[in-house]
Amino acid sequence: MSDHALNQISLDTFKTLSAGEKAPYLTEQGRSFHALVAQQFSRPMLDDLCSLANDVRRLAKTRDGSSFLQSRLFDKRAMLYFAQPSTRTFLSFHAACQTVGLDVVNVRDSSTSSEMKGESPEDTIRTFSSYTDLIIMRHPACGFAEEIAWLLSNTSRPVPVINAGSGKDQHPTQALLDVYTLERSFENNGGIDGKKVAFVGDLKRGRTVRSLAWLLTKFDGVKIYFVAPPELQIGEDIIAYLDAAKIPYELTSDFDQVIPEVDAVYMTRLQDEWDSDNESSQLDISKYYFTKDHLNVLKEKAVIMHPLPRRKEIDVAVDRDPRAVYWRQVRNGMWIRAALILRIFGCDQKVRDYYKEHI
Amino acid sequence: MSDHALNQISLDTFKTLSAGEKAPYLTEQGRSFHALVAQQFSRPMLDDLCSLANDVRRLAKTRDGSSFLQSRLFDKRAMLYFAQPSTRTFLSFHAACQTVGLDVVNVRDSSTSSEMKGESPEDTIRTFSSYTDLIIMRHPACGFAEEIAWLLSNTSRPVPVINAGSGKDQHPTQALLDVYTLERSFENNGGIDGKKVAFVGDLKRGRTVRSLAWLLTKFDGVKIYFVAPPELQIGEDIIAYLDAAKIPYELTSDFDQVIPEVDAVYMTRLQDEWDSDNESSQLDISKYYFTKDHLNVLKEKAVIMHPLPRRKEIDVAVDRDPRAVYWRQVRNGMWIRAALILRIFGCDQKVRDYYKEHI
Amino acid sequence: MSDHALNQISLDTFKTLSAGEKAPYLTEQGRSFHALVAQQFSRPMLDDLCSLANDVRRLAKTRDGSSFLQSRLFDKRAMLYFAQPSTRTFLSFHAACQTVGLDVVNVRDSSTSSEMKGESPEDTIRTFSSYTDLIIMRHPACGFAEEIAWLLSNTSRPVPVINAGSGKDQHPTQALLDVYTLERSFENNGGIDGKKVAFVGDLKRGRTVRSLAWLLTKFDGVKIYFVAPPELQIGEDIIAYLDAAKIPYELTSDFDQVIPEVDAVYMTRLQDEWDSDNESSQLDISKYYFTKDHLNVLKEKAVIMHPLPRRKEIDVAVDRDPRAVYWRQVRNGMWIRAALILRIFGCDQKVRDYYKEHI
Repeated sequence: MSDHALNQISLDTFKTLSAGEKAPYLTEQGRSFHALVAQQFSRPMLDDLCSLANDVRRLAKTRDGSSFLQSRLFDKRAMLYFAQPSTRTFLSFHAACQTVGLDVVNVRDSSTSSEMKGESPEDTIRTFSSYTDLIIMRHPACGFAEEIAWLLSNTSRPVPVINAGSGKDQHPTQALLDVYTLERSFENNGGIDGKKVAFVGDLKRGRTVRSLAWLLTKFDGVKIYFVAPPELQIGEDIIAYLDAAKIPYELTSDFDQVIPEVDAVYMTRLQDEWDSDNESSQLDISKYYFTKDHLNVLKEKAVIMHPLPRRKEIDVAVDRDPRAVYWRQVRNGMWIRAALILRIFGCDQKVRDYYKEHI
Repeated sequence: MSDHALNQISLDTFKTLSAGEKAPYLTEQGRSFHALVAQQFSRPMLDDLCSLANDVRRLAKTRDGSSFLQSRLFDKRAMLYFAQPSTRTFLSFHAACQTVGLDVVNVRDSSTSSEMKGESPEDTIRTFSSYTDLIIMRHPACGFAEEIAWLLSNTSRPVPVINAGSGKDQHPTQALLDVYTLERSFENNGGIDGKKVAFVGDLKRGRTVRSLAWLLTKFDGVKIYFVAPPELQIGEDIIAYLDAAKIPYELTSDFDQVIPEVDAVYMTRLQDEWDSDNESSQLDISKYYFTKDHLNVLKEKAVIMHPLPRRKEIDVAVDRDPRAVYWRQVRNGMWIRAALILRIFGCDQKVRDYYKEHI
Repeated sequence: MSDHALNQISLDTFKTLSAGEKAPYLTEQGRSFHALVAQQFSRPMLDDLCSLANDVRRLAKTRDGSSFLQSRLFDKRAMLYFAQPSTRTFLSFHAACQTVGLDVVNVRDSSTSSEMKGESPEDTIRTFSSYTDLIIMRHPACGFAEEIAWLLSNTSRPVPVINAGSGKDQHPTQALLDVYTLERSFENNGGIDGKKVAFVGDLKRGRTVRSLAWLLTKFDGVKIYFVAPPELQIGEDIIAYLDAAKIPYELTSDFDQVIPEVDAVYMTRLQDEWDSDNESSQLDISKYYFTKDHLNVLKEKAVIMHPLPRRKEIDVAVDRDPRAVYWRQVRNGMWIRAALILRIFGCDQKVRDYYKEHI
């Protein structure tokens, strides 16, 4: 029987907690067992993961380093359980698993399972977990990954769960890759501490923005600009959290004025797939687009980010500017996910040691 | 051209044989080439596979053992050809293949193939077999796996076939995992010989029960109880077989009376997906449910099994009792399938030798 | 930024070129980077690939050779992006990748991607390419693979593209496997030079025939027979090309007369899936079937080929004749694709060296 913190409280109690209150249950002696909510990552953990991701990225460029990385978890299996389609998150995790030697098996749709034979979802997941050593899960229902993590923590063979996106709710590894991209972008420029970050576009519904705003509070002296039409401004819960954490922020609809001020512009697309009545597609958001002309007023060492997919928020002519780092974000996701997996399995120190000795 | 026994008789002749009569054609000098029907496994073969599965299971727990196992078949490929969905059997075979180093490729649906271009099923399978060294096949049609095995035995590049479930008919590796679970459960208690086993629930349509009943006849002094409402009792062909083999059995509808008598309770769910008119869903089968109270009358060393998925046949409160071994059955399936694959490729002796030397 | 030839001209210009004119842009210092059109393969390249495929095939038969091959690209990943179903081409490439150690990830349908979120196809592919080192692409749109190759050549992380079939247009690796099969068939009989090859059946729409006819012009003294009903005869563009290349050919509808003349009979099926109004299914093509009786008039060292799937064009009774090589074509596809991949990654010389030393 596991002595994992998650099995010390009931599922019902766990569910009533806010993401921040859940954090302690997901961290064990400085080690994350499950990775479910952005809020569970402390500043030291973030720093550790970013530096580990650097080691992984550089090791993976050499044949010897690749071979070492792949021999870390060659004897383990990961299940990519994607009840909701997401090719890019799937590919990113698949590549991360391959980097560290994990064999991957892919379950796309639970309707091919025994649910139709009257089995409970809990039994289905417990059965699936029997064949694997890690579950990477994407599910449309908020809280489903947490429920599974709680359930598995209470079995005799607990299996770690990584939340790869749950509804409008959480997508913690996206937030990690954004932090890692900021870290890399500012690595010769003082790091994230003291930087000004603008979030632009549909801030009301983008879980990416919400999670990253949360994680930025772990850094010193950060200032955040929320740039959006009033209808799509950031939620009050985030504002309340920033107030409590004493993080300075501004809410504005004047994009042009913000661009020259900031060190990072984080663009987002309109999330109109959540619309019930297409109301937001009536909005003119073109004044929140990043155009070629904006490159002239953007700071020389600033960066332009986007979680992708993009529509017209960023002119394709911007892609070749060295400050456009959204394609690099994609690769960064792979490295930080590999780092997270190594950490979950306790392989991080061996990777660091090998890196120091060989590179 | 293969000298495999299967190509010594015509397919039409082969099809007319009973499962028991087919057995000799599927066994070559003590080695199973194809694995198609439960009946082909002799007692020595069952003992061998169970002991090999033990070796595999223990080796897989160590990095060196895993590495040795994975190097057995690293240069071979297996095709999981699942024309019928079954996530758990798929996952179990996938894990078994990975354990012994087989690269897996997955074909879920033959409708994505050239059948729509007017190709015969035989040509399709022969083409598919060209890319692989083992075909693990699940198909809704009874006898389809046998037909393919026969066909491939008659080509210049015969590829072994494992039946992963064919219609209502056969699911031989499920029967193997049940035997392996019984072996493990009784390993410090005299083995399967002399034990009393109760099958409970929908015995009429569960292929699992039929196959396992068949295999139990290979053991000495076993007694079987078939516990079911009259409408769902075991088929007459099985009864006739037990009579011929002089195996004692009882047919009863009194579950409560049987529980304290037996060493193993094998629960099954209602297989109402085979119903044409929902007639069986009218039946009250609640008196064939295993409840928490039954734990008090069950023998101390007895076990509760279930092929899963379950509905309400077993109260979830029973799960934590050490006598509930249905979750262990799931893992056992992986080990016995890995053992079967090693045996098919003739790698069994090397694994035994390595085990003896190293563990 | 890549210095790849493809990024030296605009996509629009590239698109206007014929397949032959495209060739120089796809070949860099004797090395094929992308593999998009049959026409890009020169005679020395074809000879090289065939001899490399021989080495791969023989190495793969031994455990040491397999291990060496798999260690070539163990640190790389390939994406099989099949927007159009094709199980056999998929399986062939999957096996080829596994042979040289490439980890494979499978994207079957772009509709599971972010295209529905308003992303451009270019962005989708560029994102996908971030996770992989090779894209093997099948797509219903003519020219799509070329467009993607051009696009990726203009990024800071160019990824090679192999065209695994694009509409009615190109299927270059099928043409390669046909050349390789002819090479192997005539390896003790003077090679392809000077041989007579008959193409039979639906020559109008079979891209296989078109591509192979093109490649045969690279050999000396080849004569081609196009055997088809007038409605399905070979296109005028191919005829014009053969005229320009001064390759002798005959157009005929008399199959019986041609059979005893030729060294290879290349059978094809009616491609009626391209019919808009079923007009071709009205045609009686039974006089273009290869029957058992034809075996008596076929030369002793001739071969019968078919790209498969077949319908009734070849009697199954022909399958056991040693001159029937269509099942061997299937395996040859795997070897020549593995050779092509090794060449794309510049691993060819190491494989040749290992082969010479060890076998």
